[in-house]
Amino acid sequence: MDAKKLAAESAVEYVEDGMTVGLGTGSTASWAIKALGEKVKAGLHIQAVASSVASEDLAKQYGIQLTDFSELSRIDVTIDGADEVDAQCNLIKGGGGALLREKIIAYNSSQFIVVVDESKLVRTLGKFPLPVEIVPFAAELTLKQLKNLGCETSIRQKDGKNFVTDNGNLIADCFFNQIEVPELLNNSILLIPGVVESGLFLHPKVHRVIVGYADGTLHLLKGDKKK
Amino acid sequence: MDAKKLAAESAVEYVEDGMTVGLGTGSTASWAIKALGEKVKAGLHIQAVASSVASEDLAKQYGIQLTDFSELSRIDVTIDGADEVDAQCNLIKGGGGALLREKIIAYNSSQFIVVVDESKLVRTLGKFPLPVEIVPFAAELTLKQLKNLGCETSIRQKDGKNFVTDNGNLIADCFFNQIEVPELLNNSILLIPGVVESGLFLHPKVHRVIVGYADGTLHLLKGDKKK
Repeated sequence: MDAKKLAAESAVEYVEDGMTVGLGTGSTASWAIKALGEKVKAGLHIQAVASSVASEDLAKQYGIQLTDFSELSRIDVTIDGADEVDAQCNLIKGGGGALLREKIIAYNSSQFIVVVDESKLVRTLGKFPLPVEIVPFAAELTLKQLKNLGCETSIRQKDGKNFVTDNGNLIADCFFNQIEVPELLNNSILLIPGVVESGLFLHPKVHRVIVGYADGTLHLLKGDKKK
Repeated sequence: MDAKKLAAESAVEYVEDGMTVGLGTGSTASWAIKALGEKVKAGLHIQAVASSVASEDLAKQYGIQLTDFSELSRIDVTIDGADEVDAQCNLIKGGGGALLREKIIAYNSSQFIVVVDESKLVRTLGKFPLPVEIVPFAAELTLKQLKNLGCETSIRQKDGKNFVTDNGNLIADCFFNQIEVPELLNNSILLIPGVVESGLFLHPKVHRVIVGYADGTLHLLKGDKKK
């Protein structure tokens, strides 16, 4: 069985009747949306918010009721994937370009559950280029400031043009190689005017990490087992 | 003589031949642009970048040569106003809604000169509502997080609708009343996903503050006198 699917299906067990659920973006998050859809078909009542148009469409297709952010007072649980997970359960996210919406939803959730396969586990973050969302205005100056933090950067491309996020911004992929202290780097990045958000998700905001292995086993890297 | 005009004209004396100049936005910054225009007419060679379309238009009208950010390696000096200046020369800016572009230009300048009249001087920042630029996506959640920092907030309105910044975002005006430690508050605000930038400009980035008084005198609150 697919290790991502395994982890995603296990996370869905934490969703209870009446909850508001945040839906992530990407291949693993898609498995979670499908598994949630099955539970809804079987009688589970939930409402959901999605971090991307793609996830919204998938949720609709699987009969999951979507709600508007303006009618929302809280998000109970969010399930999403990650591009890297370090030993302290800090994350790099944003490979798909949806990091800002994902971070807004995750950081506003009572419980943020991360689902990954074993290939995403690292000792230190940074081999995966850190995505940083920046405004297009004077992007050259913002890139220069990012480089001053000790990385190489490139503006993400798609079909020969600059990739544009759902929020009308650009993604600077930052090659740090080794991120020793994610909290400090995150602060330094956010202090740069022109930066909208960084793809570093810090461990205090990550409540549960479920890792799926190719041999069909699961490991709970962070958080308690479901009672 | 108008105290704002007096301060602005004094700041222009720090602009030298061959410099790249950042142009601010607002009534005091406009005086600086006009004074620069006079110097250009008299033979000064500069190139400029502007923090708003309004300032760009004014600069063109006064014959100041504008350059593109992509052709820019540095900004030598930026002249801009402020809504409040505290005793340490921390600022609140963004009353006009251009705080993000103003902050990008100011923080990337070798010298950032602030020009105000005496009415802008305060002991502690915060009577002026702090403008915070936020993305429209899930703005309700972002507002809730801002309120958790101890302020009342309202989304800025214009002509009965949400005011939209040059970057397509919203402005949350945050009523703190007293901002005791601007640096800490700025960090806390920037850590909220959904926040693009805060209107707090911290004193290490402010190199010179020129205050104009109604009686026609000038006071240099920060920085050395021109040699």
